[in-house]
Amino acid sequence: MGQKKSKIKKLRKTIIILKRQLAALDAAPQVPAVSPLAPANGFPTLPVINGVRFATGSAGVKSGEPGGRDDVMLAEVAAGSAIAGVFTRSATRAAPVLDCQAKLARISGLSAGKIGIVVNSGNANAFTGAKGQGSVKAITQAAADALGTTPDLVFSASTGVIGQRLPHDRIVTVLQGLTGNLSADQAEAAARATMTTDTYAKGAAAQCDLAGTPVHVAGFAKGSGMIAPDMATMLVHIFTDAAIDQPILHQLLSELAGKTFNAITVDSDTSTSDALLLVATGQAGNAPVTDISGAGAFREALQSVMLDLAHQVVRDGEGASKFIEVTVSGAESDGAAHRVGLSIANSPLVKTAFAGEDPNWGRIVMAVGKSGEFADRDRLTIRFGNILVAEKGWVAPDYSEDAGARYMKNSDLQVSVDLGVGAGSATVWTCDLTHQYISINADYRS
Amino acid sequence: MGQKKSKIKKLRKTIIILKRQLAALDAAPQVPAVSPLAPANGFPTLPVINGVRFATGSAGVKSGEPGGRDDVMLAEVAAGSAIAGVFTRSATRAAPVLDCQAKLARISGLSAGKIGIVVNSGNANAFTGAKGQGSVKAITQAAADALGTTPDLVFSASTGVIGQRLPHDRIVTVLQGLTGNLSADQAEAAARATMTTDTYAKGAAAQCDLAGTPVHVAGFAKGSGMIAPDMATMLVHIFTDAAIDQPILHQLLSELAGKTFNAITVDSDTSTSDALLLVATGQAGNAPVTDISGAGAFREALQSVMLDLAHQVVRDGEGASKFIEVTVSGAESDGAAHRVGLSIANSPLVKTAFAGEDPNWGRIVMAVGKSGEFADRDRLTIRFGNILVAEKGWVAPDYSEDAGARYMKNSDLQVSVDLGVGAGSATVWTCDLTHQYISINADYRS
Repeated sequence: MGQKKSKIKKLRKTIIILKRQLAALDAAPQVPAVSPLAPANGFPTLPVINGVRFATGSAGVKSGEPGGRDDVMLAEVAAGSAIAGVFTRSATRAAPVLDCQAKLARISGLSAGKIGIVVNSGNANAFTGAKGQGSVKAITQAAADALGTTPDLVFSASTGVIGQRLPHDRIVTVLQGLTGNLSADQAEAAARATMTTDTYAKGAAAQCDLAGTPVHVAGFAKGSGMIAPDMATMLVHIFTDAAIDQPILHQLLSELAGKTFNAITVDSDTSTSDALLLVATGQAGNAPVTDISGAGAFREALQSVMLDLAHQVVRDGEGASKFIEVTVSGAESDGAAHRVGLSIANSPLVKTAFAGEDPNWGRIVMAVGKSGEFADRDRLTIRFGNILVAEKGWVAPDYSEDAGARYMKNSDLQVSVDLGVGAGSATVWTCDLTHQYISINADYRS
Repeated sequence: MGQKKSKIKKLRKTIIILKRQLAALDAAPQVPAVSPLAPANGFPTLPVINGVRFATGSAGVKSGEPGGRDDVMLAEVAAGSAIAGVFTRSATRAAPVLDCQAKLARISGLSAGKIGIVVNSGNANAFTGAKGQGSVKAITQAAADALGTTPDLVFSASTGVIGQRLPHDRIVTVLQGLTGNLSADQAEAAARATMTTDTYAKGAAAQCDLAGTPVHVAGFAKGSGMIAPDMATMLVHIFTDAAIDQPILHQLLSELAGKTFNAITVDSDTSTSDALLLVATGQAGNAPVTDISGAGAFREALQSVMLDLAHQVVRDGEGASKFIEVTVSGAESDGAAHRVGLSIANSPLVKTAFAGEDPNWGRIVMAVGKSGEFADRDRLTIRFGNILVAEKGWVAPDYSEDAGARYMKNSDLQVSVDLGVGAGSATVWTCDLTHQYISINADYRS
């Protein structure tokens, strides 16, 4: 009798547990705490960039109460540094983006005073009207006062919810107490303070020689959703101790952004707030680079940091379970190749096929076709990794669905498309579209 | 004792059922058999269009064995009819699309002989190289022989999997036996034979007077709701007994396609096979319309049929739980308004917000911003239904999130955006992006 009773009890308990699991599953497939594509070794050790110090604090921007995780980041950059930036081209750019663009337009050469960078997470200060501009003014003034510089040299960024008034007073209060904590080795804490839905902090570094002097590049990025070229709730901060003229810094940044951050997409949605700032303190002691021809090694180092951070943003794409590299060659131009690549990388049907580990190459044919660029069915070649899938207007004679399906099990996937109509090429990166993306963006109120 | 045993048995059974449900849910949230947005009254009674007859048969295109559901549709249109068509602009168009376009380009005026229309479901005959063109030739020749006309007047369409050779011999065999079954009142059966994984058949009709003579328009469409879609192929066939000159028919079709089928989007992915054919038999007895100015009433009737069918395609959108109308006004031009509308309607973040019944208007601001069209934050107005949500660069003072959240519970939603920078306007329609979309496209192998 007792045994049976306990059996019934046990079964009833199991049913309650199962029912709860059912309800939870029904409502929302579980979202992993950390992206399965996160770097195995965590945040890298970044080199100290002489002339740059960080501090972070908790303003409770989102919760309304300080004491939670740090959500304000202050970077102090020594006087005599160069700064360059690239930003979202959204027509509904956030107030801090407009402010940064206006200030950068007025800067040429090295900064007369210290440069300040302030970032808050939890509120994007976007679509907040004239009050949003007031918030930027209050924050940059407070940072300038704290650092002993002018607001014209303070650049701010905000990331989080759109359309809610930024509680800038809380941020101003935090800034007033932050300068005592400034430290050169707090890059990881700085990166963490800028995160929103990111599941891990993203950092990257590189080193190179400029005429025999070693110089360093270190940066961090945040971004997970609303990621598409030219936009993305993506904030990137990169620092170098190299001495480089400001116009060259700007030229390098514009050139490399196209091959890195503007070549990634998570969901084709462009943020109102994307901002990438690059600061050069010149404290490495190299003879200043005054001509683009002398920037070769630095360009490589900078590109490797930008590409590494861009890839990390994709690997933290909302719900991502696959990292996908799409290479397009044989296009009419590099621009055409880029657009075909994005047509593939942004296609929901392509992205769901990858999520389902389905080597559905027909959807890639579809995405090439809809791109608006010139293509010819009979000159198209498609490869998954090294596997030749389709050529000459049809499936390749030696292709087997089994081989394709086996390849799809990998977490990193390569798709190559040759259009066979020109010499243009481009590579873009994306992630797959999974139930978790829907859970993150539909099941929870933002 | 016996009671307890049966209790345990019952509980164990329940657990088995629950476990199965768990496993099923884990693998894939359930996809409803019929879209929750399907018309309540099912397929409408379509008027007979004099001069048009339909027959359907089973070729087993997909299964390889006839005897399953009908997958071949033959329409016979009387000699002396006018025909016009619009097609996908994909660069990787399917073989039947290319064939239809070539034939239509050679036709002006009324057809010398009978017109034939052949559709098969189960295989799209897309990306099938030169063999695909051979299949089209064989099918149109067989239909021409069966109907007693020339292949130049036979138009074919195929929908289903891409990249697989079409078993055209099976279709040819079916066509040889179909003419005996031709009947004027088989439009619903014809519509069903063109379906792939649509969850319901889509028909629409309208009537109008042309100089006192009643004329009829009737049509059907297939599209979306596929379980193994290689793309959301859309095929539309519309018939009228009106007498209308072919160039006017073509002009009307091109004009109205922009406001109807080209103004809907389920997932931003464009098919290789979209085709819309419009046939006018002229048997209503009206004085032939020879000038566009005399086509007013007919334009309205045709537009109502096209819009009705287009909406039905959206309502059968893969995984759809909300039907969303996006109206954009105050744009620099109608074209700009259309592009802003599609930027909103295709945004995964906007669509997932609707799926989650989240009045997340910040995502609409984002989608306006990324459209590439001119907008000004401070002149933007956003409404959900009649609820004023945002204006003058910020949330409207009287807007409450509760009111927004209540509105989102509706299954039909209206979003209005006024850009305040011009007089251009446009309306587009879409559905939300749900877990079911992922299930349909990722969880099942196609």
